[in-house]
Amino acid sequence: MKQIGVGLIGFGTVGAGVVEALQRNGAVLAERTGVLPVLRGIADIDIERDRGVKVDPALLTRDALSVIRNPEVRIVVELVGGTTIAKTFILEALRLGKTVITANKALLAEQGAEILAASAASGADVWFEASVAGGIPIIRVLRDGLVANRITALYGILNGTCNYILTRMEREQMTFDHALKEAQAAGYAEADPGLDIDGYDTAHKAAILASLAYGVRVPMERVFVEGIRGLAKVDIEHARSLGYRVKLLAVIKNERGVVDIRVHPTLVPVEHMLASVMGVFNAVVVDGDVVGQTVYYGRGAGRMPTASAVVSDIAEASRTLAVENRVARPAPYRGGELAYLDIGDVISRYYLRLSLADKPGVLGVVATELGRNNISLASVLQKEPHTSGRAVPVVVLTHPARERDVTTALRALEEMQAIGTKSVRLRIEDLGIEKNA
Amino acid sequence: MKQIGVGLIGFGTVGAGVVEALQRNGAVLAERTGVLPVLRGIADIDIERDRGVKVDPALLTRDALSVIRNPEVRIVVELVGGTTIAKTFILEALRLGKTVITANKALLAEQGAEILAASAASGADVWFEASVAGGIPIIRVLRDGLVANRITALYGILNGTCNYILTRMEREQMTFDHALKEAQAAGYAEADPGLDIDGYDTAHKAAILASLAYGVRVPMERVFVEGIRGLAKVDIEHARSLGYRVKLLAVIKNERGVVDIRVHPTLVPVEHMLASVMGVFNAVVVDGDVVGQTVYYGRGAGRMPTASAVVSDIAEASRTLAVENRVARPAPYRGGELAYLDIGDVISRYYLRLSLADKPGVLGVVATELGRNNISLASVLQKEPHTSGRAVPVVVLTHPARERDVTTALRALEEMQAIGTKSVRLRIEDLGIEKNA
Repeated sequence: MKQIGVGLIGFGTVGAGVVEALQRNGAVLAERTGVLPVLRGIADIDIERDRGVKVDPALLTRDALSVIRNPEVRIVVELVGGTTIAKTFILEALRLGKTVITANKALLAEQGAEILAASAASGADVWFEASVAGGIPIIRVLRDGLVANRITALYGILNGTCNYILTRMEREQMTFDHALKEAQAAGYAEADPGLDIDGYDTAHKAAILASLAYGVRVPMERVFVEGIRGLAKVDIEHARSLGYRVKLLAVIKNERGVVDIRVHPTLVPVEHMLASVMGVFNAVVVDGDVVGQTVYYGRGAGRMPTASAVVSDIAEASRTLAVENRVARPAPYRGGELAYLDIGDVISRYYLRLSLADKPGVLGVVATELGRNNISLASVLQKEPHTSGRAVPVVVLTHPARERDVTTALRALEEMQAIGTKSVRLRIEDLGIEKNA
Repeated sequence: MKQIGVGLIGFGTVGAGVVEALQRNGAVLAERTGVLPVLRGIADIDIERDRGVKVDPALLTRDALSVIRNPEVRIVVELVGGTTIAKTFILEALRLGKTVITANKALLAEQGAEILAASAASGADVWFEASVAGGIPIIRVLRDGLVANRITALYGILNGTCNYILTRMEREQMTFDHALKEAQAAGYAEADPGLDIDGYDTAHKAAILASLAYGVRVPMERVFVEGIRGLAKVDIEHARSLGYRVKLLAVIKNERGVVDIRVHPTLVPVEHMLASVMGVFNAVVVDGDVVGQTVYYGRGAGRMPTASAVVSDIAEASRTLAVENRVARPAPYRGGELAYLDIGDVISRYYLRLSLADKPGVLGVVATELGRNNISLASVLQKEPHTSGRAVPVVVLTHPARERDVTTALRALEEMQAIGTKSVRLRIEDLGIEKNA
């Protein structure tokens, strides 16, 4: 059987998972694909620590470049992470014409242009199934399974840490701070959780999915990002009583060539499958113009789920390299410009929690000002009785309105002191729930 | 750009959908894959009827063999259905070394051996993404996305007709007969609904999924099949009040090389994602030894969802054919024998609805007889008050028990006239709901 040499850069949690998966299922893999991937070198700063898998010590080295440059290595798996040294390794591998497999969403989303260019220059492929949604084969679904479709919309729960926190807040009536501390204690959140809870990790993944969906690289600067930091548990409770769950959602839409891409806490209807995604799980909803709506669900992170994705790339890259005179497959996306929708122009339904001043007729003032800005109300809920001398919290659900109009109206109401300055504004996505669904 | 000729046999609902999808998105497809599939002929008995798509009349013919034998046609798409003439067409195409794409689950499941042999003899590939779960790219997920995994279990809602009927029965408190009539009126069920409601269509698909999962062809005779015909709405109601929904489920498990494959109405926990699959939608749960549990959801039938799957096969087959010196990919499964679990040896939890005779101490007799057969009770529900002189319906949930023991115990109880002869027995699947899910 044809063998293809693989070099592993980064022998951490996922790296060890990849080695374990290859050891456990390498024979099955070869039987299924006709090509046997063989580990030819493993580089890490620390080559002493026990990773729970046995490897031939001769494979281990601290010198990543020696693995990358080893002529027997035709596939370089980059699992170092970060956007500095990892980039050096990837560019060197591509320069040498070697196929690169990476799980590095930050690098792809932030510096993808350079990597795309290096790949195009040398004709070497870059594979990145593990960069989005861990074990869910969403990249392959978009590239192959749904290749017949134009992607009209894509929605994703792509960060397990945030989904875990939101699940705990809802189920156990925890505050955000309490749930975050608990997630950190459980090992689901980093000591410095910003990348997750401020939405940037989700935005990296959204940029990659949008690039694949539209064939043109979507840079991070184009993604509107709002995280879940400080989300109030009262809003999760109100949302629930209105038939919604709050999820940190990546929303990607394409209407007549204009791309709307954003990440923010979002109310999703409880009847939709996305609402049942709990804990550290991920899910992606894809609306294709031919297939309609499809949904993909699984573990979005962790040693073995991520290894499953990396090894699927190793298998496909091995098969591709085993072919002598192949027709080069076009890159999954190219450079170039797309038209983007400004966040101010987004049309959405809104959940607003306003703190009404204790003045006679104030609700009328609010309704009038919203109406003047083309915002019509679907429902108004006053959850607590009005007590004289105190601000009254009111929850408003709107019909579809323009984001910019909502901003203008709230600012005007604050200026006339009809409402307090700490309004909560959450967007609602109906996720195109279909009839007969 | 490289072009590959495609011949379409069968210009019905799905065939017209394929033509429409190629017309609508052919350019995008070519951009994504680097190869342009071009329709070179369309055969159907009826070439007069309007299908809602425009085609060059010169492409249309009643002579399927002329399309198959056209030297410009390198991919033959069989959408005739059935297991007779369709087989002739496929075998002729394979004999000529042409790639075959088919949505024909009945043919693959019932006469797959002959097709496999013809494919192996000529080296021509057979692709069949559209044969299972319509627009959900589950075949590709198993072959590529989860290639690193041994599949430990697979559960599927694979028949939209049955799921529609079950959804209506639950939501509208309809009887089976009423829901079936309504499904027929809505065009979701055939005039002769046996293939769907008796479970055979699901069994065909289960056989294909199991063949892919284990790499060895699983023949239909190995699939235990029970349909939903005549399911009582009272059992759907009882199940619901116990926290379950009833779904026609394909269950495929592999424990130490012994394959358990069956199709039957099944109680699934409402918290599991499968329980939220409503109406004509399909879903597949895959448990992989590396990735854990993943779920795939979408439309399982219909013109455009099925076309999406067929066109994804056309894209991949085109790319494969465009390569000159390729390393042949092993067939997705081969002939050979697997070890199968007899249905009598299945260990499951059971839902039993028994009609207790009106005799003193009869519940004790039932409990004793079940216990003698190693069946222990998890709960006993008496839904109606006991009225002297009438049989008393009782619902029992068991702990895991062996199917054969349940059969033995119920027969013994019938013989001693402790219960009536019309007991209802439904299996429960917990679907491995994970912690933190």
